[in-house]
Amino acid sequence: MTDNIAFKDVKGLKELISSGEITPAELVDVFAERIDRYNGISKAFITPTPEDAKKQAADLSRDDLSASPFAGIPYASKDLFDVKGVLTSAGSKVFHDRVASSDAFAISKLRNAHAISLGKTNLHEFAYGATGENEVYGTCVNAYDTTRLAGGSSSGSAAAVAFGLVPAALGTDTGGSVRAPAALNGLVGLKPTIGRVPTTGVVPYCWTLDHVGLMTRTIEDCADLLGIVAGYDSSDSASVNRPVEDYTSALGQDIAGLRVGIPRNFYYDRADDEILAELERVKEFLASAGAVLVPVTFPDMEHSRTVSLTVQMPEALSAHSAYVQERGELYGTDFRAGLALGQCILAEHYVKAKRFVEVYRQETNKLFDEVDVILTPATPEIAQKLGTVKVTRNGVSEAIGNAITRYTTFFNMTGHPALTMPCGMHSEGLPIGLQLVGRYFDERTILQTAYAIERSGRFSIPLPRLAV
Amino acid sequence: MTDNIAFKDVKGLKELISSGEITPAELVDVFAERIDRYNGISKAFITPTPEDAKKQAADLSRDDLSASPFAGIPYASKDLFDVKGVLTSAGSKVFHDRVASSDAFAISKLRNAHAISLGKTNLHEFAYGATGENEVYGTCVNAYDTTRLAGGSSSGSAAAVAFGLVPAALGTDTGGSVRAPAALNGLVGLKPTIGRVPTTGVVPYCWTLDHVGLMTRTIEDCADLLGIVAGYDSSDSASVNRPVEDYTSALGQDIAGLRVGIPRNFYYDRADDEILAELERVKEFLASAGAVLVPVTFPDMEHSRTVSLTVQMPEALSAHSAYVQERGELYGTDFRAGLALGQCILAEHYVKAKRFVEVYRQETNKLFDEVDVILTPATPEIAQKLGTVKVTRNGVSEAIGNAITRYTTFFNMTGHPALTMPCGMHSEGLPIGLQLVGRYFDERTILQTAYAIERSGRFSIPLPRLAV
Repeated sequence: MTDNIAFKDVKGLKELISSGEITPAELVDVFAERIDRYNGISKAFITPTPEDAKKQAADLSRDDLSASPFAGIPYASKDLFDVKGVLTSAGSKVFHDRVASSDAFAISKLRNAHAISLGKTNLHEFAYGATGENEVYGTCVNAYDTTRLAGGSSSGSAAAVAFGLVPAALGTDTGGSVRAPAALNGLVGLKPTIGRVPTTGVVPYCWTLDHVGLMTRTIEDCADLLGIVAGYDSSDSASVNRPVEDYTSALGQDIAGLRVGIPRNFYYDRADDEILAELERVKEFLASAGAVLVPVTFPDMEHSRTVSLTVQMPEALSAHSAYVQERGELYGTDFRAGLALGQCILAEHYVKAKRFVEVYRQETNKLFDEVDVILTPATPEIAQKLGTVKVTRNGVSEAIGNAITRYTTFFNMTGHPALTMPCGMHSEGLPIGLQLVGRYFDERTILQTAYAIERSGRFSIPLPRLAV
Repeated sequence: MTDNIAFKDVKGLKELISSGEITPAELVDVFAERIDRYNGISKAFITPTPEDAKKQAADLSRDDLSASPFAGIPYASKDLFDVKGVLTSAGSKVFHDRVASSDAFAISKLRNAHAISLGKTNLHEFAYGATGENEVYGTCVNAYDTTRLAGGSSSGSAAAVAFGLVPAALGTDTGGSVRAPAALNGLVGLKPTIGRVPTTGVVPYCWTLDHVGLMTRTIEDCADLLGIVAGYDSSDSASVNRPVEDYTSALGQDIAGLRVGIPRNFYYDRADDEILAELERVKEFLASAGAVLVPVTFPDMEHSRTVSLTVQMPEALSAHSAYVQERGELYGTDFRAGLALGQCILAEHYVKAKRFVEVYRQETNKLFDEVDVILTPATPEIAQKLGTVKVTRNGVSEAIGNAITRYTTFFNMTGHPALTMPCGMHSEGLPIGLQLVGRYFDERTILQTAYAIERSGRFSIPLPRLAV
């Protein structure tokens, strides 16, 4: 029974609670027991907090349980989010002693919604890296094939949901760190519009590109979770003061007439053929449902990764300079190399990169004059074997981390909301994902489109065998 | 008669036009004749355009003249604003051949309002410098004492209004380049909220701190002009999409109960005693009119100039790198030195400076929980003699340009709207100015307060003798 429960979506769990089949405290027990069982292999959690969770669950009143779609539901958060009284390790020895004195904005929203924090998840140290490899806390593996990577940097959040250890998790996404691992693990991953969810209380990696992101099993859970964590905080310079919308009401709306942009140019020549074939199936479905497919020409993305890194590394360096002086020897290999790179970048080049970012944003905005949503693959590759360093396609060899985030990084720079979701299985037994990108602050149209795809039932994928 | 007309405010000129006492074409003739007479000494204009202005004035219909408070009124713009078909020199040999192919946003708004562009005004080369010294086009002098500086960088815009060559002018303000010269020349100078007036079509100096600014003789003219040039342009990343407000209706509203912040700490120990004494008079007046004076503690500004320069120089360098390669030998001494400085700044330091900027913004925002508007001196010194390099107060010696902008630079970083206006005469025969700072997008309260001070009649200053 418990394994059956463990892979339910939040909505399904809420029904069990509402019908009295299970109490929130029992639900915590189910997941806590699974964490005991699977954390050794998955490496999903750095700090599980079952005791705190049990206490919180036991304290919930009947009224509390009707407070939100996540009331009484356990969730996990990437170990960059401050949870009051709990270590925020950032996946690094550098923060081995950093116990949070208050909740991050999103955590506080979830606490007010009576969701139950079940712990803090693993990540690429300080979110710098897309493979999720971590020298200190181990490397998360893929629930569909434990010889493969979960992807990162929100590796633990993806693994926690994919292994059935929580039904939903928070991550951060600076270049695809939520969307890519969600896609590689058969989950829904959302990076909302920049400014939609404040990053207050989240250890910064790169201020101007960091986004709070969501991972769930279903589109409806994603919409519900966004409704809880969205908001405004004046102490976050990127935060935008807008009313929180009812995202759930967007679901189920007809997509007939919706204009879906299909990029002509998107490095398709360097993507797995099976991923592209799945995308074709999705396009056929959307057309059959009445959507209008509109070819669009994307801004030139050739330098976009360089531009992103030129922004990332000085910002990371600036955030870390005090720690580098005090605890430099505690940094891991990857991040240390990144910081060294950051030290060589001139202000002139950073400023130029920021101008590129602005051009990308404006040119992408213009695409939305023609279309309502844009469809792309989530990643050009499925989850690769642990230890993979490079992937080669069509004669071009690329670092694995670059490949994983090749389709996602661009939208951190432009700030547009973007969602990844499963759309099929690869012949190697790993999930394939698609990405939907929308207008600024129009998460609703993305969710509407995603829900139509999900509800069609044509793109469902099996649960991971190993995890059950 | 013409000299009498030349020092009228825009409202007064409109009355002459409305009553039929003068036609717009005759008005252009009056000012064009004065430019012939005074441009040699004032150095206000780089490119006067009387022929274009006469043609435009002659074409105006009766309907056109009722289109806006500036319809039929000549104005000038700093030679960074593109005016279609006219040279935009930026005060530099580098742009000796740069004829604009379209209007800047603000110019276009003024053209639609049937205001008449009478030409392009002098400036510190590329707006880098607060003294207005220019090796190519000469150095603007002060209308109150031609042995003294007009100040800068919008030196020509200030001199053009102060010498009675136009009744209003546009400038740019990156650290005080509108407010400081306005104050030194006995004029009203407004830097609106960042994002209120798009900088599209204005040669950039430093993207993230540049503001379009306004210079007029009166508060009412300033409110009218802001109503014309405010707006939104998606191609300017700082532009904010807000409705244009009716600024003029804010004037004349009672200031009883208004909370006026008086900074406790504002480098008063390094300001001219007579300027501080005038501020005391203004405070007394405000209190007598029912305003509540509230002492406020300013954020620590000790590093604010360094922070501003660390942002300015890499941005300027990035904007100029193409020209530096092609035409490096055409740059003047000051700007060349600035660019060289910019080349030594690391991205890490730029990013740190931007974080300081964000802290300044947040801390200043907090002050407005307690007060509605903040009162400070406009400048710590009156206009200094031509050729002055340093000023010394209380044993501290400071570069003249730094002193001129010491009270203004901070608000380019925080983005708050700020207005300077005359509030008395110094015993040396030069104007003294005050500065009012408001909440984000609350230019109305600044204008309301400024109008009360102006209308009281207690702070009026004489016209410059030499100019009449």
